[in-house]
Amino acid sequence: MSIGVGIIGAGVMGADHARLIRSHVSGAHLVAVADTDPARAREAAADARISTDPLELINGPEVQAVIVASPDHTHGDFVLAAIRAGKPVLCEKPLAATSEDCLRIIDAERTAGRKLVHTGYMRRYDPTYRELNATLKAGTLGKVRILHNQHRNRVAPDWFTPDMAVTNSFVHEIDISRWLLGTEFKAVTVVACGSDRPDVAADPLLITLEAENGALVSTEVFLNAGYGYHVHAEAVCERGGVRMGQPALTSVLFEGSDRAAFPANWIPRFADAYRLQDQAWVNAIHSGSLDADASSSWDGYMASYIAEKTLEAFKTGQRIELQVPRQTG
Amino acid sequence: MSIGVGIIGAGVMGADHARLIRSHVSGAHLVAVADTDPARAREAAADARISTDPLELINGPEVQAVIVASPDHTHGDFVLAAIRAGKPVLCEKPLAATSEDCLRIIDAERTAGRKLVHTGYMRRYDPTYRELNATLKAGTLGKVRILHNQHRNRVAPDWFTPDMAVTNSFVHEIDISRWLLGTEFKAVTVVACGSDRPDVAADPLLITLEAENGALVSTEVFLNAGYGYHVHAEAVCERGGVRMGQPALTSVLFEGSDRAAFPANWIPRFADAYRLQDQAWVNAIHSGSLDADASSSWDGYMASYIAEKTLEAFKTGQRIELQVPRQTG
Amino acid sequence: MSIGVGIIGAGVMGADHARLIRSHVSGAHLVAVADTDPARAREAAADARISTDPLELINGPEVQAVIVASPDHTHGDFVLAAIRAGKPVLCEKPLAATSEDCLRIIDAERTAGRKLVHTGYMRRYDPTYRELNATLKAGTLGKVRILHNQHRNRVAPDWFTPDMAVTNSFVHEIDISRWLLGTEFKAVTVVACGSDRPDVAADPLLITLEAENGALVSTEVFLNAGYGYHVHAEAVCERGGVRMGQPALTSVLFEGSDRAAFPANWIPRFADAYRLQDQAWVNAIHSGSLDADASSSWDGYMASYIAEKTLEAFKTGQRIELQVPRQTG
Amino acid sequence: MSIGVGIIGAGVMGADHARLIRSHVSGAHLVAVADTDPARAREAAADARISTDPLELINGPEVQAVIVASPDHTHGDFVLAAIRAGKPVLCEKPLAATSEDCLRIIDAERTAGRKLVHTGYMRRYDPTYRELNATLKAGTLGKVRILHNQHRNRVAPDWFTPDMAVTNSFVHEIDISRWLLGTEFKAVTVVACGSDRPDVAADPLLITLEAENGALVSTEVFLNAGYGYHVHAEAVCERGGVRMGQPALTSVLFEGSDRAAFPANWIPRFADAYRLQDQAWVNAIHSGSLDADASSSWDGYMASYIAEKTLEAFKTGQRIELQVPRQTG
Repeated sequence: MSIGVGIIGAGVMGADHARLIRSHVSGAHLVAVADTDPARAREAAADARISTDPLELINGPEVQAVIVASPDHTHGDFVLAAIRAGKPVLCEKPLAATSEDCLRIIDAERTAGRKLVHTGYMRRYDPTYRELNATLKAGTLGKVRILHNQHRNRVAPDWFTPDMAVTNSFVHEIDISRWLLGTEFKAVTVVACGSDRPDVAADPLLITLEAENGALVSTEVFLNAGYGYHVHAEAVCERGGVRMGQPALTSVLFEGSDRAAFPANWIPRFADAYRLQDQAWVNAIHSGSLDADASSSWDGYMASYIAEKTLEAFKTGQRIELQVPRQTG
Repeated sequence: MSIGVGIIGAGVMGADHARLIRSHVSGAHLVAVADTDPARAREAAADARISTDPLELINGPEVQAVIVASPDHTHGDFVLAAIRAGKPVLCEKPLAATSEDCLRIIDAERTAGRKLVHTGYMRRYDPTYRELNATLKAGTLGKVRILHNQHRNRVAPDWFTPDMAVTNSFVHEIDISRWLLGTEFKAVTVVACGSDRPDVAADPLLITLEAENGALVSTEVFLNAGYGYHVHAEAVCERGGVRMGQPALTSVLFEGSDRAAFPANWIPRFADAYRLQDQAWVNAIHSGSLDADASSSWDGYMASYIAEKTLEAFKTGQRIELQVPRQTG
Repeated sequence: MSIGVGIIGAGVMGADHARLIRSHVSGAHLVAVADTDPARAREAAADARISTDPLELINGPEVQAVIVASPDHTHGDFVLAAIRAGKPVLCEKPLAATSEDCLRIIDAERTAGRKLVHTGYMRRYDPTYRELNATLKAGTLGKVRILHNQHRNRVAPDWFTPDMAVTNSFVHEIDISRWLLGTEFKAVTVVACGSDRPDVAADPLLITLEAENGALVSTEVFLNAGYGYHVHAEAVCERGGVRMGQPALTSVLFEGSDRAAFPANWIPRFADAYRLQDQAWVNAIHSGSLDADASSSWDGYMASYIAEKTLEAFKTGQRIELQVPRQTG
Repeated sequence: MSIGVGIIGAGVMGADHARLIRSHVSGAHLVAVADTDPARAREAAADARISTDPLELINGPEVQAVIVASPDHTHGDFVLAAIRAGKPVLCEKPLAATSEDCLRIIDAERTAGRKLVHTGYMRRYDPTYRELNATLKAGTLGKVRILHNQHRNRVAPDWFTPDMAVTNSFVHEIDISRWLLGTEFKAVTVVACGSDRPDVAADPLLITLEAENGALVSTEVFLNAGYGYHVHAEAVCERGGVRMGQPALTSVLFEGSDRAAFPANWIPRFADAYRLQDQAWVNAIHSGSLDADASSSWDGYMASYIAEKTLEAFKTGQRIELQVPRQTG
């Protein structure tokens, strides 16, 4: 009883989800791919059918579950359509264009009477973050007092706007920090490294989140770190700390140094995370519930809300307080 | 078009293969499990049917491919039966009880006119060994001059005989060293750490293989290393080297030190290797050939042959020359 | 032509300087130790003479150079006395009780027409910081964009007041950051980890310095990190980064993990830095100038001034701008 | 009461000892340097007097202690002369040209009734080896079962003969292994990596020493490892192990990898070891005895004797038994 999955969007992420569902995830198979570009859809779909109409795909009878990997601004509408069709949906981050749109999704899910939305903050399935999280949850170290995150890209893509350091990169840090700490945040401050070139954005940003329980989260987002893709986390607690090791499995002894390679970008770094996320999503559909570790619609909302406030802190130079309603769902 | 897999043996390894085929491998499903203990077979089989007769399982029409994970001395017969039935077979190491029995399997496969045997030396699918291998094959470092292997267990199981340091542990090092170096060996020497207790086996063993191309392979097999399960490899070449990093994904800062944990045993250490091996095996069946990286029947023979000669070197204290016929198959 | 050194203060630091001058520094010898406690002075002095009067020591004809290691609030007066006596003086940090007092020392030195003051920010002589600094100065990596400092103690001493996280610990980070970056700072912000116990100080502090050239310095000062003494720095530049490795020379494989020990406190961690500082100080006296890497009276002033402003930022929760006059001396 | 030191030989090692005694060692000063090349002697001597006659230097009244750093084959005679003059002597390794010559030195010392000889196996003073040794001696790990040594050079000097892999490089491993294990050895085996070029020596060598207490010492000596100077040791014991960390103090994040540099050669790698050895030697002279950690004349003999037997094992391809008389001195 394999689940038929339909995918909207056949870009980098959509094609990767298609590959995973086709060849690496047990208990599901790919039935359809929708994209405005039929050739691209065909390449991702392999033997599955293709479509240029996402809503037609969502409502197709053979589609039992939907992955949304279309352009960011379209996410919200497709997720709402999937909820209306009563189908589980895994939506690439962000969940919607604005936090207000995310709230509409939460409402729709509440109306549907069932949690159908899994927001694709895939780091929760990364073996390294999971090992770190398991150590924190084991309790030996006590409560987290400070979490340091580093999010470094070799070079920002051409199409990155200054805001995207927050809305595209930092959102991952928001989601994973909430998951690791299990607490909400009450304030955010941003200090930016000044650029001496007017055409170059401030980079890196140093973003501090203050948690309701007193803990701090300090995150460096550096889009042009020059040397490689480097995501790192270290949590220091009351009685000790835990941190990520070098991401490389091997090191090379060459020309005078011992060299451990960084991944080229997020795709090799989080390949396992995407696979494990998609497998957990499929397993959860089989069991009729949302995966316990999934980033829910509420989590998707929180990430978008805090990102919006972080942008405000960045632009005003002020410490911005966060107003977090208690989750009622 | 999913492949129906039958598994012989529902012990630790058989149950793990059953779990992988059921829930983690794409393109295959579990159809039957045979074990002398029906309760154990049932637990591994979940919804699949069970049997107490391995030969009946092998010949069952719904079984399209076989995994042999029964006690070591039974491997050879079941593999031969699978070949006779014309079915692809993944056999846990060793391939057979003796190297002579392995030759019989090679003959049977030649008669069948088709490579059907994949010997379960799963390290070839371990991401760390693969990254190391890819670095060697890239050529920048030149030819391997010396390969150091370390194979340490925390403590030897009760049922380990002194010979098993070679036949059970060192065989893995033989197979992976042949794969990494792409050469055969011409001699083996064993030096043993003496024990001052007559009831305790010599441990560790230090085993040197001399390759036909002049390279050396130095392996420490330490069954009672006391601190954990630790498999390590480092290859030093003409222009540099490559070695494994720490296996832990994170480290813990606690009570005065930075601590990176070792896996408890081979199961967590090689969990990915087993999954990727089984997936590659299934993919290869779909494509009608043996996986290019699989340990073949010839490789299974070579591991057993060299292990036998290593035992001879251990017992005589002499350097033993190896006679390797060229592979003709 | 060995230099006769007199030391004021025979506490932990004074006794250590006495030991270094007596047995580990070439080109100098210990001639006198002054302390209010004659027994303590005697223990540190070994064969040298002792005194209970620091000013008498400073003016003693056999004392050619002075080390001030008395209680912090007394530093300024003894440094001024040494300048008046025309003798080179190495003063443990801080240079004086307030930044204003430091300015008086700068004036006195200017009047004396000669740089006589070496402030004991010894990290500039630590081999690890020096290697890091040399990498930055080599230029390959480009300008520093962000410097991360971590200053963790296992547990704060009983006598630590909340302010001392800044005045006693963070001052080291100020001095070393100025030295590494070669720039002044224009603003400071402090965010504190809240404590849920009213009797427990906010800990850790997260302090951000904004440099005039746009770079950021982010420092965690954690007095009760629980696991050990851990000082770390990582600089990320335009084209790459450089960071400290593990401080341990060896690691221990024990009870399931690979363990690299942290030093118990700053004394073993910076033992080489103190020795090399004292040797460089003596060498510089022989050559008639101040050591090129020494923290000067101006540097001592800057550390104290920025610490005072940091305290203000901590207490007000505001971003505080720094007013740095150009150094004229 | 500073000790006047005379140095024989102003080559690389002699000049370095001269620099250490002049500027980095407390309690001693340089009084004379002898070399066949007066210009070279002058450069090393700075203000001290120079000589072209080593025996004249040894017997000079202002010379209270002697360092022998002349060509290897001359060591024995100069050490004997120093013993006859009743002066402490620190002799660069090897102690003499042959093990028999070393025995003559032991006899001379016995006749003198006083231990005057410190053989310059400086690794015993290297902080990393000392930390490793201290861990072994603490006892928590139990007895050493296997010690792995790696001795890699980037490229062998032009003037290296094949034998020098043993007599020049491996001797260090012999001395440090004896010191770390506190036991003698009963047999040695050598396996060489074959070369496909007749003009190129076998490289690396893999040398196994069997200790009287059953432990093994496995050493790789690789003169042309290509990538850098890399000395490493790892001891695995009954209950755990201890090993050296990366020698670099910092690592550089650059062009896709995290890079920890290797030292260029033994000089930076063992700079501290030489300084600490010379300081310990001077301190011991002040106290009237040989430093407890010094490599004595007996140790110098043992290193030379085992090296000779290792050469025999290398050339014959046989396991060679060692005959070690009990030290009677």
